[in-house]
Amino acid sequence: MKNWFVIGDHSIRESIANRPKATKCLYLRQDFSQNNDLKDLESLARAKKINIKLLGDKKLNQLCQGHQGAVLETQAVSGPDWNKIYNKSHSLVLALDGIEDPHNLGSILRTAWLMGADAILIPKDRSVKLTPSVLKIASGGAEHVPVEEVTNLGRSLEELKKESYWVSGLAEGGRDKLHQWQPEEKAVIVVGAEDQGIRKGTRDKCDRIIEIWQVEGGSSYNAAIAAALSMSQYRNKWL
Amino acid sequence: MKNWFVIGDHSIRESIANRPKATKCLYLRQDFSQNNDLKDLESLARAKKINIKLLGDKKLNQLCQGHQGAVLETQAVSGPDWNKIYNKSHSLVLALDGIEDPHNLGSILRTAWLMGADAILIPKDRSVKLTPSVLKIASGGAEHVPVEEVTNLGRSLEELKKESYWVSGLAEGGRDKLHQWQPEEKAVIVVGAEDQGIRKGTRDKCDRIIEIWQVEGGSSYNAAIAAALSMSQYRNKWL
Repeated sequence: MKNWFVIGDHSIRESIANRPKATKCLYLRQDFSQNNDLKDLESLARAKKINIKLLGDKKLNQLCQGHQGAVLETQAVSGPDWNKIYNKSHSLVLALDGIEDPHNLGSILRTAWLMGADAILIPKDRSVKLTPSVLKIASGGAEHVPVEEVTNLGRSLEELKKESYWVSGLAEGGRDKLHQWQPEEKAVIVVGAEDQGIRKGTRDKCDRIIEIWQVEGGSSYNAAIAAALSMSQYRNKWL
Repeated sequence: MKNWFVIGDHSIRESIANRPKATKCLYLRQDFSQNNDLKDLESLARAKKINIKLLGDKKLNQLCQGHQGAVLETQAVSGPDWNKIYNKSHSLVLALDGIEDPHNLGSILRTAWLMGADAILIPKDRSVKLTPSVLKIASGGAEHVPVEEVTNLGRSLEELKKESYWVSGLAEGGRDKLHQWQPEEKAVIVVGAEDQGIRKGTRDKCDRIIEIWQVEGGSSYNAAIAAALSMSQYRNKWL
């Protein structure tokens, strides 16, 4: 399994706290002592006996873009442990049908963590992956919610249905309204891509299509907002 | 009042559709005909008799960063019409206590539009303003939800309370839980800054502090997500 390059202060700290043994190396900008956040990070890494390497800006940029002077190399989080998840009495899984904006995937990971989601499915093609930018925006969420890349999202939804999950897709024109939705104990929420929404092949696998109330003539909710509103509806029912 | 420079295909289209008479000029990249989105935008502007100017990339970048080949100059949306808002039987106002991330303000504007919020208050200092990037991310939301920059947010909350608004702040440790919140007909939701949350002076003006459920030990919801979840709770009660 490939290593992750984690950037962003929150995300690096959460990775170290959550999986201390998985860390490989903390790369820091040579002049880290000029910056209090980086200094704190260095102290933390030393206390945890994490390997530290000082690099020039150029080499840091080669590792990954968008860092703020620190990059943590760590083992990737493994995929979902489905046997364990299937054994739960209540379970929430997200299926993202082609999210392309790193900001949206990062935001969904952060919210999914806080809402206690069990796993996220993304298609192997047509989707942004767990890039350093996504991990940064996830603010630690990627440490807690395992993501599985699947070859055929429709087939994965079928498998979940066999395990007693109900599959609900978010789309305009849905017959069910989100605020009236009574989620089942085991729920999959399908979120469509930013511009295209849910593809027909995926939509056909949904047990129901749910619409979120909005003012008439308005555009439509951002994918990360729609995901948050629907996860919240699930959580409020099964707190 | 200063003009806006609107970027982003959705935002430019919404501005033209919503306030056609306010448009001053559409600036397009010289080679716009190479790009279908830009070509469509040019046809739309011609049909609406909007003044079009072709510019080189350098001049477009001087107008504003982050454009994708098109910048619409238009009159800024005027501030909230408080007399009209105060006369409504049901009304939702947002107060953002120092949002600094353009992505968050843009996202909140987009969601606030779709949730039918009446106005947004932001402090004159310590807040990101309606920059072109914010307008882009708002996807047209800034056309519909008027924003007022206020010198003293606490004083503005006092004025709203005199007009029968109840002020609810979002913060960890709040005694009320969001999913149990029964919003009043006239509600102000206060959203804190990304790192600092709601400042003490603002918090003292809140009638109640509301907490959003989350898994223990998690970080906390992004400001735009928290705003969306709370607006949704209001809207679900007063659909």
